[in-house]
Amino acid sequence: METSIATVCISGPLSAKLHAIAAAGFDGIELFEPDLIAAPESPEEIRALAARLGLRIDLYQPLRDVEGVSEEEFARVLHRADAKFALMQRLGVGTVLACSNVATAVTDDLDVSAAQLRRLGELAAGRGIRIAFEALAWGRHIDDYRTAWEVVRRADHPAVGVCLDSFHILSRRTPLEGITEIPGDRIFFVQLADAPALSLDVLSWSRHHRLFPGEGAFELADLTRRVLDAGYRGPLSLEVFNDTFRQTDPVRTAAQARRSLRWLEDAVARIDPDVPDLQLLPDSAAPAGVAFVEIKGEDTSGFDRVLAAAGFTAHGRHRSKAVTLWTSGRARIVLNEERAAGLAPRIAAVGFDVDDADAVTRRLTALGVPRVDRRRLADEADLPGTIAPDGTEVYWSQAADAGDPEWAAEFGPVQRSAAHGVTRVDHVSLTQPWQVIDETRLFLSAAFALEPQGSTDVPGPAGLVQSHVFGSPDGAVRLPLNVAPPLSAEAGRDGGPVQHIAFACDDVIALARALADAGVAPLPVPANYYDDLAARFALPESTLDGLRAASVLYDADADGSYLHVYTRTIGGVFFEFVERRGHYDGYGPQNAAVRLTAQQRAADRFGA
Amino acid sequence: METSIATVCISGPLSAKLHAIAAAGFDGIELFEPDLIAAPESPEEIRALAARLGLRIDLYQPLRDVEGVSEEEFARVLHRADAKFALMQRLGVGTVLACSNVATAVTDDLDVSAAQLRRLGELAAGRGIRIAFEALAWGRHIDDYRTAWEVVRRADHPAVGVCLDSFHILSRRTPLEGITEIPGDRIFFVQLADAPALSLDVLSWSRHHRLFPGEGAFELADLTRRVLDAGYRGPLSLEVFNDTFRQTDPVRTAAQARRSLRWLEDAVARIDPDVPDLQLLPDSAAPAGVAFVEIKGEDTSGFDRVLAAAGFTAHGRHRSKAVTLWTSGRARIVLNEERAAGLAPRIAAVGFDVDDADAVTRRLTALGVPRVDRRRLADEADLPGTIAPDGTEVYWSQAADAGDPEWAAEFGPVQRSAAHGVTRVDHVSLTQPWQVIDETRLFLSAAFALEPQGSTDVPGPAGLVQSHVFGSPDGAVRLPLNVAPPLSAEAGRDGGPVQHIAFACDDVIALARALADAGVAPLPVPANYYDDLAARFALPESTLDGLRAASVLYDADADGSYLHVYTRTIGGVFFEFVERRGHYDGYGPQNAAVRLTAQQRAADRFGA
Repeated sequence: METSIATVCISGPLSAKLHAIAAAGFDGIELFEPDLIAAPESPEEIRALAARLGLRIDLYQPLRDVEGVSEEEFARVLHRADAKFALMQRLGVGTVLACSNVATAVTDDLDVSAAQLRRLGELAAGRGIRIAFEALAWGRHIDDYRTAWEVVRRADHPAVGVCLDSFHILSRRTPLEGITEIPGDRIFFVQLADAPALSLDVLSWSRHHRLFPGEGAFELADLTRRVLDAGYRGPLSLEVFNDTFRQTDPVRTAAQARRSLRWLEDAVARIDPDVPDLQLLPDSAAPAGVAFVEIKGEDTSGFDRVLAAAGFTAHGRHRSKAVTLWTSGRARIVLNEERAAGLAPRIAAVGFDVDDADAVTRRLTALGVPRVDRRRLADEADLPGTIAPDGTEVYWSQAADAGDPEWAAEFGPVQRSAAHGVTRVDHVSLTQPWQVIDETRLFLSAAFALEPQGSTDVPGPAGLVQSHVFGSPDGAVRLPLNVAPPLSAEAGRDGGPVQHIAFACDDVIALARALADAGVAPLPVPANYYDDLAARFALPESTLDGLRAASVLYDADADGSYLHVYTRTIGGVFFEFVERRGHYDGYGPQNAAVRLTAQQRAADRFGA
Repeated sequence: METSIATVCISGPLSAKLHAIAAAGFDGIELFEPDLIAAPESPEEIRALAARLGLRIDLYQPLRDVEGVSEEEFARVLHRADAKFALMQRLGVGTVLACSNVATAVTDDLDVSAAQLRRLGELAAGRGIRIAFEALAWGRHIDDYRTAWEVVRRADHPAVGVCLDSFHILSRRTPLEGITEIPGDRIFFVQLADAPALSLDVLSWSRHHRLFPGEGAFELADLTRRVLDAGYRGPLSLEVFNDTFRQTDPVRTAAQARRSLRWLEDAVARIDPDVPDLQLLPDSAAPAGVAFVEIKGEDTSGFDRVLAAAGFTAHGRHRSKAVTLWTSGRARIVLNEERAAGLAPRIAAVGFDVDDADAVTRRLTALGVPRVDRRRLADEADLPGTIAPDGTEVYWSQAADAGDPEWAAEFGPVQRSAAHGVTRVDHVSLTQPWQVIDETRLFLSAAFALEPQGSTDVPGPAGLVQSHVFGSPDGAVRLPLNVAPPLSAEAGRDGGPVQHIAFACDDVIALARALADAGVAPLPVPANYYDDLAARFALPESTLDGLRAASVLYDADADGSYLHVYTRTIGGVFFEFVERRGHYDGYGPQNAAVRLTAQQRAADRFGA
């Protein structure tokens, strides 16, 4: 499968884009005209640079408003096109994208458009150039790929074919059956973009919110399969207009883009194994659980106190390293003070239990996800790992059916005791910079089969926090990822936004009492909150009293109920203890706003 | 006119919100329930705090999903409502907002809704409380204020009335004629919000993008007039859900909100002078021109060189201050090195020529726009001034029919010479932090009658720059304000984003030559740009050669053409010289992208 990407997808001047695209392993580019116009390099220099980097220039784009126009206007179109065809010869590019008319069309007569495209095709053919005609979703008269193909069919010139763009097709829910009715050799180019489900006008949606495959809501695999079924064998090319990717580091964005195509190739191969030249990724299931969470900081002693009070067992500071393992049931927390001078505590790493660690390793390698150097958690065990888009290290290791993972042994004999009933990690909540959340989605889904499970806005006192939940189908791994409001994220607090680890336990009220008995105060919950609970739920007064006394929060839905308590924040991390009753599957969304306000109050009081 | 504001409009914990709202001069608040639930203060404490601050609690909000439900569900509604009514008695608030059902409605039978509202009204009346029923634009069955009124009419209970919310009415373009058909005393509450014109689903539009009156595209004055015509005499209250205002400083946002209501009061009084109790703002026309632009920095000598080369005359460094006035025609630039240690040059102030300086002063005072202390530009002249939302100082002074403004005299005798034909300031382009652009719109429009004239996205190498143009109807004042891409704005460059001053001149090619002769190099323009000009416009080869040789950019439309050249950036400021031919009214939008790329290249080369 040949791959290409439009230069408009990423930031920087044109030469930097080409370097980034080549480094990511693409075969070619679509050269976006404004990038060339603003570049100091001559067309010949760009051609030579692309050649040196091993990149084909697959497409020059776009020619706008070329058909359906008056004869007087068409004379201007020919003048403009001829200049661009001459330029393309200097660049050594053989195909130009022509978009359906949005501005100057005076007729919806397809025969006029076809005749004008044919004349353009004749002009292009004289210079060895082909025209790929594309229906924009907001074209004045031609806004459907089937109509574009009809015009191309009527133009009946070998230098005139169609360009299919997934956004223009899927955004308008155009039926896909027409794709395989187009002869493959008349499809001159294919552009792919994903997008989130938005109810926004299609022009704004397209210009600002496109995403790379696997980051949005479109069924791209099905469309791509049909294009290949039609016999198209040209490059699959990304054309993603996105306000964020226009700003972020081009090398990183290009790598993300290339990975999205690798994911797509696999997805297509899975729905249709007969399509030639597609490679599957190694199979890999979602993690079976959270093996450990590591907190790193100059001083993690505050966590020792909380974990001890919660019935965790310490497995000793390692003899040569300032690393401690705390366990309760299958919950494992690594506190790491190694090389953490000046660092406020934060979640540095998450480890997953997986059924086949080698398969995960092979899958990430095939996706081109960079591996971090293996490192020893304490002393002996080597763990394969990588770095998530938000900077958190992610490791994976073979899940043990019984007993603890191999790496745990280096901390000495580990018992599964759980003095106060903490059984495992329920969820890990990381804070995401707004500019990486889309990349994170592809990362978690393609690399770890952790899929998005919905998102919600939590109104905090410093702004809306967007909470995006990712997880495994069985609920064994749950990652609610929070995008903080930009202004407060920018301002920082304790060196970064707040993250947390939630532990599942059998009886959260008893646990909260145990914490209090050990002198670990919970995050205070206002009395008004419990008055509201009384209004919303038919809870017995004694139950309410029990919740209130222990500062435990409550939610319930048709599936069950959720009781949870928060600890105070240390550095950039706090803990939550949760008890899920019945099949409650959420996170108490209304309670999160109460927590954010209490945390802001605590931070203001105690300084931050 | 009584004013109120919902606590959800601004950031912070509840007590901070109350202080900010009181400081802005509001008469009352709508208490948003989640703000109370998350507050540590008891209802009695909140009541007492509001009383001490001189704020009424006009409304408690919201009760959701109260009507159109099954009898079983209605029992739960009554339980919930009764608890909230008791709470409202503790708070001392007499009216509650009930929204039309979005979640639990089982019938569209208006008689069922009316009967249930009546029973709620009976319960409320027992506690001295009134219910204001509001049609949400996305209500399941009741989504139109006229239907809400019909339900209230059928409920026929003195404790049940309607709440009108401008967003729900104007977002769906519901006809306004029905408003005056509602008896004024049955309108229990009125909520006002503006909004930008977006083609977004109405729920997302409402929850994230509402604006204060005067900042959006809604015709709020007409709606407000009708509400008052109907006989409503309760508070006009702001309910603005906005992702930005939830993050910004509450004191500043509340002041902005109060100002928006003052602006609205004036706008209503202007369309209907018969409405009682409304005060007009003092009349004030748009400025007649730009009196001066001040650049402040530790070292402004680089500008001396450019201005001298452009034919400006220096009026001497003031005898006691490091301040220089440069003039050419009516263009006046003040270079100020006073108290600017360590400051890279930036635009610190803009002065407007106005026809009636006292009227402007009175108008800003009435709007509650804070005045900055008068200061002397150099020595003698006192200038009234204020600070724009982006931090730029803005001054105004009486326009002189002939000769120069009074303050200019302190620099000595000023001649109107213009050695190279620079006649005046064409436009001033300031960079806006993204979080102030809405506030800026209200500021420029309400205070200075400078209205928005469209916006466009400029694709730069570091992201999209949103350019919002404001100006006077006659084009004498033009302010294209740019919102930089968040990531590059955050990173900063030379201490801040780049601003510029554009000068109008008679012959820009001659001027560019004069600059070059004086050793002032223009910002380089790539050859590819001129090749594209040749493709797009039928320009004679000699014209193209002239543009190319002088690094002058070109644009044309049906009204005329635009020739312009940029200087290199010094600190955070560059100059542009423009020649408008015919009635060209734009800014060469396609050229801005070329400029941004060239500027990035120059900054990378010379260090930044």
